[in-house]
Amino acid sequence: MINALLLDDIIKNALKEDIGTGDVTTQATIPYDKQFGGRFIAKESGVICGAFVAKRVFELLDPDVKMTIFFEDGAAVEKGAVLAEVSGRAQSILTGERVALNFFQRLSGIATFTCRCVQQVAGTKAVITDTRKTTPGLRVLEKYAVKAGGGSNHRHNLSDGVLLKDNHIKAAGGIKAAVEAARASIPHTLKIEVETETHQMVEEAVACKADIIMLDNMTNAQMAEEVAFIAGRALVEASGNMGEKNLRDVAETGVDIISIGSLTHTVKAMDISLKF
Amino acid sequence: MINALLLDDIIKNALKEDIGTGDVTTQATIPYDKQFGGRFIAKESGVICGAFVAKRVFELLDPDVKMTIFFEDGAAVEKGAVLAEVSGRAQSILTGERVALNFFQRLSGIATFTCRCVQQVAGTKAVITDTRKTTPGLRVLEKYAVKAGGGSNHRHNLSDGVLLKDNHIKAAGGIKAAVEAARASIPHTLKIEVETETHQMVEEAVACKADIIMLDNMTNAQMAEEVAFIAGRALVEASGNMGEKNLRDVAETGVDIISIGSLTHTVKAMDISLKF
Amino acid sequence: MINALLLDDIIKNALKEDIGTGDVTTQATIPYDKQFGGRFIAKESGVICGAFVAKRVFELLDPDVKMTIFFEDGAAVEKGAVLAEVSGRAQSILTGERVALNFFQRLSGIATFTCRCVQQVAGTKAVITDTRKTTPGLRVLEKYAVKAGGGSNHRHNLSDGVLLKDNHIKAAGGIKAAVEAARASIPHTLKIEVETETHQMVEEAVACKADIIMLDNMTNAQMAEEVAFIAGRALVEASGNMGEKNLRDVAETGVDIISIGSLTHTVKAMDISLKF
Amino acid sequence: MINALLLDDIIKNALKEDIGTGDVTTQATIPYDKQFGGRFIAKESGVICGAFVAKRVFELLDPDVKMTIFFEDGAAVEKGAVLAEVSGRAQSILTGERVALNFFQRLSGIATFTCRCVQQVAGTKAVITDTRKTTPGLRVLEKYAVKAGGGSNHRHNLSDGVLLKDNHIKAAGGIKAAVEAARASIPHTLKIEVETETHQMVEEAVACKADIIMLDNMTNAQMAEEVAFIAGRALVEASGNMGEKNLRDVAETGVDIISIGSLTHTVKAMDISLKF
Amino acid sequence: MINALLLDDIIKNALKEDIGTGDVTTQATIPYDKQFGGRFIAKESGVICGAFVAKRVFELLDPDVKMTIFFEDGAAVEKGAVLAEVSGRAQSILTGERVALNFFQRLSGIATFTCRCVQQVAGTKAVITDTRKTTPGLRVLEKYAVKAGGGSNHRHNLSDGVLLKDNHIKAAGGIKAAVEAARASIPHTLKIEVETETHQMVEEAVACKADIIMLDNMTNAQMAEEVAFIAGRALVEASGNMGEKNLRDVAETGVDIISIGSLTHTVKAMDISLKF
Amino acid sequence: MINALLLDDIIKNALKEDIGTGDVTTQATIPYDKQFGGRFIAKESGVICGAFVAKRVFELLDPDVKMTIFFEDGAAVEKGAVLAEVSGRAQSILTGERVALNFFQRLSGIATFTCRCVQQVAGTKAVITDTRKTTPGLRVLEKYAVKAGGGSNHRHNLSDGVLLKDNHIKAAGGIKAAVEAARASIPHTLKIEVETETHQMVEEAVACKADIIMLDNMTNAQMAEEVAFIAGRALVEASGNMGEKNLRDVAETGVDIISIGSLTHTVKAMDISLKF
Repeated sequence: MINALLLDDIIKNALKEDIGTGDVTTQATIPYDKQFGGRFIAKESGVICGAFVAKRVFELLDPDVKMTIFFEDGAAVEKGAVLAEVSGRAQSILTGERVALNFFQRLSGIATFTCRCVQQVAGTKAVITDTRKTTPGLRVLEKYAVKAGGGSNHRHNLSDGVLLKDNHIKAAGGIKAAVEAARASIPHTLKIEVETETHQMVEEAVACKADIIMLDNMTNAQMAEEVAFIAGRALVEASGNMGEKNLRDVAETGVDIISIGSLTHTVKAMDISLKF
Repeated sequence: MINALLLDDIIKNALKEDIGTGDVTTQATIPYDKQFGGRFIAKESGVICGAFVAKRVFELLDPDVKMTIFFEDGAAVEKGAVLAEVSGRAQSILTGERVALNFFQRLSGIATFTCRCVQQVAGTKAVITDTRKTTPGLRVLEKYAVKAGGGSNHRHNLSDGVLLKDNHIKAAGGIKAAVEAARASIPHTLKIEVETETHQMVEEAVACKADIIMLDNMTNAQMAEEVAFIAGRALVEASGNMGEKNLRDVAETGVDIISIGSLTHTVKAMDISLKF
Repeated sequence: MINALLLDDIIKNALKEDIGTGDVTTQATIPYDKQFGGRFIAKESGVICGAFVAKRVFELLDPDVKMTIFFEDGAAVEKGAVLAEVSGRAQSILTGERVALNFFQRLSGIATFTCRCVQQVAGTKAVITDTRKTTPGLRVLEKYAVKAGGGSNHRHNLSDGVLLKDNHIKAAGGIKAAVEAARASIPHTLKIEVETETHQMVEEAVACKADIIMLDNMTNAQMAEEVAFIAGRALVEASGNMGEKNLRDVAETGVDIISIGSLTHTVKAMDISLKF
Repeated sequence: MINALLLDDIIKNALKEDIGTGDVTTQATIPYDKQFGGRFIAKESGVICGAFVAKRVFELLDPDVKMTIFFEDGAAVEKGAVLAEVSGRAQSILTGERVALNFFQRLSGIATFTCRCVQQVAGTKAVITDTRKTTPGLRVLEKYAVKAGGGSNHRHNLSDGVLLKDNHIKAAGGIKAAVEAARASIPHTLKIEVETETHQMVEEAVACKADIIMLDNMTNAQMAEEVAFIAGRALVEASGNMGEKNLRDVAETGVDIISIGSLTHTVKAMDISLKF
Repeated sequence: MINALLLDDIIKNALKEDIGTGDVTTQATIPYDKQFGGRFIAKESGVICGAFVAKRVFELLDPDVKMTIFFEDGAAVEKGAVLAEVSGRAQSILTGERVALNFFQRLSGIATFTCRCVQQVAGTKAVITDTRKTTPGLRVLEKYAVKAGGGSNHRHNLSDGVLLKDNHIKAAGGIKAAVEAARASIPHTLKIEVETETHQMVEEAVACKADIIMLDNMTNAQMAEEVAFIAGRALVEASGNMGEKNLRDVAETGVDIISIGSLTHTVKAMDISLKF
Repeated sequence: MINALLLDDIIKNALKEDIGTGDVTTQATIPYDKQFGGRFIAKESGVICGAFVAKRVFELLDPDVKMTIFFEDGAAVEKGAVLAEVSGRAQSILTGERVALNFFQRLSGIATFTCRCVQQVAGTKAVITDTRKTTPGLRVLEKYAVKAGGGSNHRHNLSDGVLLKDNHIKAAGGIKAAVEAARASIPHTLKIEVETETHQMVEEAVACKADIIMLDNMTNAQMAEEVAFIAGRALVEASGNMGEKNLRDVAETGVDIISIGSLTHTVKAMDISLKF
């Protein structure tokens, strides 16, 4: 589960954004004490994720609203499935509805797409991971959704992993110099990854014992050769416009990891509604 | 332009999320004083939006980074276009790059899709608008991008517009009662919109002088009939799973507004890169 | 009711301001477990508002303090009336007392004065509204108090209503141009108000279908003429140093709305005390 | 001057409250680059205070707006006086105008009323002070305005002064016990004040060397007797519904301090406008 | 007790700092529902302080974690003493453990060292106080620990006490001028302290009725002379590199207060562990 | 350098804590425009760190204060060395002085002690690292000071490194199970460290390819044996009450890393003063 203090900050921010000074419609028309019950329904099949966020949305608005969740995050559901039930004061539920759905739908959309990608590579050793191409402010939730969909996470931010790209390498004076500079500077608990574009770069990265080697924008044939060359001396990550269609072929090159920006930079919300 | 104080809060939040305790890679490899220049390039054609956000990302990290923007928000650009130039300390540019691109790509993605929808209805009087199905925490930016793409905005939040839905109407005892309750309660500067599903509901909404009537999930034929019936006595909004494909037909029913959740709930980032 | 998340922010801010690093007097003299009971008493007659804020003040300091409220916001009470009872740990009650009273007295003062204004225009169709001349940081509460006193609210902020003043009109090139620019830019859920000072301006505003026309600093005679001219084609708002004394005369000109800055910019706190 | 970090927090909070998601009127009608100049004019005579807050309002919105202030805080001005000039982008000035005036008018109102009170007691040794009955969130500014008006400040909050009231005294077991408990607990840099209602209480407070003795709700005759009895062994503060009218008589009893809640709990904004 | 709202801010800040995006170790290995019990053990003798902070750390992470505290703050405990028990979900306890200990150990370290200093001066009238040389962000807690250790507090910040140092005195034109300027400006509830380095300065400070006279970096012989000269006309504070060793001698000069920066600027955490 | 946005938050928090509502002493005695110059002097020899924080303290209070720094962080200086010069408005410098020194002294104290530890192990391959036993709220600065002193950093928080301790191992069902659970769950950019107390645990940790093996509270003889057994198959970290005295012996066992809690949990501020 996610750091609860971060989660509350994200949700409160979203509620303030959506409520403004107050829900004028609900306040004008719904009696204060009117009780309500509703059910979250999947309007298409998919992999759900984030019901706990929706639940917390209501709790932060009104601690007396109760929500019961029927599926764990990561469960595959069919169109029409009842995902959760919510009950309590109608004002609180109506005021929180849109924010709850905005989180629930997005996270389920990410989990669903991730799951499709994971299924493409089933049976290979390749692990599907996200990138830092997440929605500003929601990274911790989006990376959670990737895991719910069966994927794994790349580094969370610039401080919990080293990724030496072209510019770092040039400025440091080559791969060897860059890896050594990083190794001398970082906590010993972090790994060092090197982005490579040619076989020579791969050779250099292996020579200086990089922990992870990213093969950036290589053909599948090239990648297969590099995997054979690296031969387990580093983790191998395939990267660069990894679309849903070619994933199986990429996985069969023998890479350990396939990182896919579109898991989070291109989101199709899953259609979920709250019916009363 | 967007409220600058809100914008800074959003960007600082994003930078803290992405930088964590510090960019360990850049600090280890890039000399403090090394200067850098880069260009933002469109890697596909589209409608750009949000270069000013990218610029502010760099400024908040380092006031000495300079960014020059070559296109106004809403400009249609071709693949390969140089969108902006940035120069300054390499550390600052590399550390801010991902956050800058995350904003710029998403907002351009929204503007691009909105523009396609707007072009579908060109020549009709229909205006394309967004909804409240935005990404939590980024609404003000996403609604800005919809306008950059040629669309218009629906209400920003629950306090700056009345939208009487099914539950409000039932709880209040009918459309007439709900409209009157709202009118007695809200600032006189806000309009009242009623969501309708049947002709009878439309009749009632017209009778009590609703300012806007939403036709929810009606067929195009039904909508055309309601437009004729309403005859200018209220603005007419078409709503309910408005996809890109059927927009022209919807617009030709004569509605004033078509609101489309997918403008913001389903985002495909535009491919933009920063080349050094 | 007010957005609970905003309310908590306002109250926490006030408590931190008043408590500083700690209530040295209470901590030195009151045993930790000592229990206390007290009653809020009206020391003058008036319209009360804000007991719920006082209650929340105590809850945020100490969830075990209980407060029972005997009158709804908006109730007229006589001098000597017992407005509420509070009980719990004496330390918590004494530490929160001043902040609780500061809110309760101010909001009741606003409700009381608003009620007097509303009574002046009883029997006419004029609605009394506030303005944006509120105390920085307390607008949401002060506008709530105006409603409790029988008034109505003008727009809450610069984003939930258009008010075209002199400078906007000049810069846009006249009333017609300004209204059209606004209409093309704003959400369709907002109304457009035009501030006018002459008959010609009123004519222009009617011609371009402004939703609301403000008559600014006109004589009552002028206003009556403009009301007759407008004849229901727009809401009519009287504005400009509306004091308590002349309200009836203004109302009898037939205007729909009278907006009064002094409802909130000039506040006389109602005298309420907490007796133990 | 006020702690600049606190001031910025207060102003940013006020600007966010007033601007909401953006100033829709100004953005629709005023060209981005249009320049503007305006003058703050006193529309009634008074003692001005807070022009520097107005200046900071504009700076926080737009660092390029310039404001020149013509009078120091505390200056008495006549109706018609030009208080300050502001120039810069018209959008920024119009968007910040209301918040700037809301601060400037309120603080000048407090300074003006304080000055009137101070003039009442001119020639006596009595000092006029405020209380903690300030507007939640604005205490630091309101207490600044009291000083600008010629008054002095009572304690700022519950941690920078001891004031033993009825309940503290009872709980501690008498004045002597309460003073000793406080003296043993507080920083040696703070004074101890005792609220008294009878001569016996005054005797006890003197006996245990209270630094300040508050005479609460006593008649002027009583106060004169207590002043004579105390004879310089403690500072003497008169308190309890000190209205503007009776201040001279109170001061002539010989008290050192007269604390007046209405300096801040009942505010009449000074009429100041911004003319372009 | 400390202002609960400040305490929560400090603890939440610490938890966010330590948890980052989530406790990856605990989440991977500990089942969600696993329950746990642990005991806080003193691994050396000392004066404990801050168990309530540790308790609040767990509550803010998980309201269902229960912690029972066996000693009051300020109690002297022997090595091996069981200080408190905690039970609840193992994930919550393990995730909060380090932050809880970081607070508990530091505050107990301060209380222990303060207690040793206080014991040095037992039987004299000298009171041991802290200074403003505290850890940024933790002052309210560190000053609380000084009191738990038997010390007293100097002023909390720059607004709740006047301390005229060399530079203030020079700029104001001498001690007399500085004291008078301060007296005319500050709330009457605050005392005025003057830092002196020579007998002449002490004479001047006494002459203008300073409330407190600090003897800065004087020899013990000098201090004894000044105490005799002052003769109760002001509180006397000894200051300047007061180490643990010479405290008794300093106290025997007759000073009222000995302020010691190292109480808080040089902290040795008490060794406390959480055993399961 | 440290994430500038985090640094500003930490400093602003410290300034608000120390200034309260305003520096009453300085405001009363120092003319607004008086200029001042001062020098930071080392009053004992040591390794300095944090002058840039002191500089930022002044900048955040007053952008016109200038500070020139004469030594880089990590420089060893002798008693009497002039570390930096500051000049600008006297009010700003005096108000910020204490906060600037509180940071500068603490960080230099940590760097100095770290440097002494590093010198103990000079010539061995052992690296000295910190732990998570840092001061709540200042971790990013304290870890920076450890690096300035020649040490290296352990993980920054619970999300950027796996450390499997006793309780994690038991709950997961042994070292193998715990390592596998972690490996399946974490980003591939993080390493896995196992805390061991016996040779059998070391064997298991090696068998499942832990990246780092912590030898907790072992004798030096035991550690030498384990280092020989591990033979480069994992990084080896010595931990457990590592005091300054025994470090050389520990280092000579051949461990890669020695982590020392007292680098940050027991801080002796370096004596630095600001002389005018």
